[in-house]
Amino acid sequence: MANPTLLILAGDGIGPEVMDQVVRIIDWYGDKRDLAFDVEHDLVGGAAYDKHGTPLHDDTMAKALEADAVLLGAVGGPKYDDLDFSVKPERGLLRLRKEMDLFSNLRPAQCFDALADFSSLKKELVAGLDIMIVRELTSGVYFGEPRGIFEEGNERVGINTQRYTESEIDRVARSAFELARRRGNKVCSMEKANVMESGILWREVVQKVHDEDYPDVELSHMYADNGAMQLVRSPKQFDVIVTDNLFGDILSDCAAMLTGSLGMLPSASLGAPNANGHPKAMYEPVHGSAPDIAGQGKANPIACILSFAMALRYSFDQGDEATRLESAIEKVLADGARTADLMGPEGGTPISTTQMGDAILEAL
Amino acid sequence: MANPTLLILAGDGIGPEVMDQVVRIIDWYGDKRDLAFDVEHDLVGGAAYDKHGTPLHDDTMAKALEADAVLLGAVGGPKYDDLDFSVKPERGLLRLRKEMDLFSNLRPAQCFDALADFSSLKKELVAGLDIMIVRELTSGVYFGEPRGIFEEGNERVGINTQRYTESEIDRVARSAFELARRRGNKVCSMEKANVMESGILWREVVQKVHDEDYPDVELSHMYADNGAMQLVRSPKQFDVIVTDNLFGDILSDCAAMLTGSLGMLPSASLGAPNANGHPKAMYEPVHGSAPDIAGQGKANPIACILSFAMALRYSFDQGDEATRLESAIEKVLADGARTADLMGPEGGTPISTTQMGDAILEAL
Ligand SMILES: CC(C)[C@H](C(=O)O)[C@@H](O)C(=O)O
Ligand SMILES: CC(C)[C@H](C(=O)O)[C@@H](O)C(=O)O
Repeated sequence: MANPTLLILAGDGIGPEVMDQVVRIIDWYGDKRDLAFDVEHDLVGGAAYDKHGTPLHDDTMAKALEADAVLLGAVGGPKYDDLDFSVKPERGLLRLRKEMDLFSNLRPAQCFDALADFSSLKKELVAGLDIMIVRELTSGVYFGEPRGIFEEGNERVGINTQRYTESEIDRVARSAFELARRRGNKVCSMEKANVMESGILWREVVQKVHDEDYPDVELSHMYADNGAMQLVRSPKQFDVIVTDNLFGDILSDCAAMLTGSLGMLPSASLGAPNANGHPKAMYEPVHGSAPDIAGQGKANPIACILSFAMALRYSFDQGDEATRLESAIEKVLADGARTADLMGPEGGTPISTTQMGDAILEAL
Repeated sequence: MANPTLLILAGDGIGPEVMDQVVRIIDWYGDKRDLAFDVEHDLVGGAAYDKHGTPLHDDTMAKALEADAVLLGAVGGPKYDDLDFSVKPERGLLRLRKEMDLFSNLRPAQCFDALADFSSLKKELVAGLDIMIVRELTSGVYFGEPRGIFEEGNERVGINTQRYTESEIDRVARSAFELARRRGNKVCSMEKANVMESGILWREVVQKVHDEDYPDVELSHMYADNGAMQLVRSPKQFDVIVTDNLFGDILSDCAAMLTGSLGMLPSASLGAPNANGHPKAMYEPVHGSAPDIAGQGKANPIACILSFAMALRYSFDQGDEATRLESAIEKVLADGARTADLMGPEGGTPISTTQMGDAILEAL
């Protein structure tokens, strides 16, 4: 049987340097675990713009649709701030999400024991934290029409449209309930049904999917503003949170920051199953391109490596191998290996991106 | 000269009981400081619905437009959860905001020294915290058309419209810059200009207002998701934050929770100046109607009393009297008076809503 295929889009900023470490891990799986992948590399974001004048070339888009999984680094940087909206690095990412139809974005907010002190929250509130945010990723205000800046009378008006169909809500709700069954069996759905009709429909459909097909999962509903408060007040009350594209953007970043270790958090964006039974999928770290430290060997590769672990689990049925990789990372942290972003007030000497890769390979 | 007029809309849940304490403070100002107000009471929210079948009667709306300031308690409760969207308690509040054209919502997130331990954040990150969030309150996705739930093909779609004109952005930006000049002289504007055209226009207009009329104020721009992260990571980096209606709803609640004492936070919603030179204005606590503790004398009246202090400052040019009231409250807290919501893990005996009112009057 042919090897599974991976398309690597390292992107901008620290993307390429953290992805280098992922490639070493991938090679290790080929050499040592008889789990070889056919890897192809291509450009996205500013890097693609520099070469092709567009943040995602059509050929790259076609390759992404063919690959068994896409691994993405990060996009964006100050160099591209003044580009027109239509060719900004982010548009490359958004196009991948939309055309691959990756409607379910899984963003774990997990607090690593060895790093609980890094949270700005009191340790007892975050130690052992393990939330999974399921963010709808292909609709809502990110993609709704009409949109744009228009003339109206003698001034301009900026317009975007929040828009959700029943089937869009239905499918992401299902993915949240499925996940909950494999975790704490609890889902909290967040919207602003007290103010927005799209939120009313959201709440209604989530409730219906629950009542018809997942009555065994505990479901609650919360207004998104209260959700932000509750995340800060006592995050451990949550298991799975399901919410729309825009609320998910904000609430997942808020939740990620609670853990205090943004350089540690992976994400998976999943679509409908392929012919091979696995979902179309893209994996990427939650952190951005961090242009301020790019190219200095300071970046923490763990979020990107953990994104590959998610790929092993969700795209390749290799849950045990994913756990092996996650455990190796926990061991390395417990042993005290720290990149610059993980330096506490006590100080110490940070290791480089490559040295962190070395340590993880060693632990494997 | 006639006394200034106040319209009191105590609303639902704990609204009436906290407002009772505000009335005692108002009376004290009339008796002791020769600062008498003509006070009228009326209904809003569920209370208005119960009597009139609408969460805000037209007569009440007319009175609100006439009054020098409106003091609002809180609206909503489980009893009204199944009402039609158009008559939910929240609609009363939203109608007041819209018809009074209260475009600038000031939400201070302040951490009281005596209460710094209550934050879920580490004490050093929040002690002395003093952020002012300026939230646009009369436009955006809260009011944009088209909106509703429509049939489309053989399913329904929920639609809301985010919409900002240049002049709407201009006026709220000005109010933020004006405030910043009287504080730390720093404004951070938040939107999602990387994804939404309305955010692009927002950023452009805020920058233009700055460059033309407030070049002395330090201005920065931040994506709203990063804003949520930064609020959790190191809130003291902010002075004034200006943002739209929906982002403001979520980010201000997030910021409020950072202080750990939601029962302490007031807000002011300001519009264009009246004939008398003062803005149309409504003042209300940030906390909600807290139906779980309503009617038990447990509620903390301080947020509502501090909202009246904001009225003294912004509507009646009584900054010194506002400070007097705020200092009295600080003293009472420093002396150890605590309502139930302010009980720490050490325990102690909480005082009642009325006893907190007594203590503040005593300190005055
Ligand atoms: C880069 C940006 C377009 C993106 C988003 O807003 O979705 C990012 O913030 C994210 O959360 O993945
Ligand atoms: C009650 C609700 C309509 C309101 C809002 O969403 O604006 C509240 O959350 C607030 O922040 O004042």
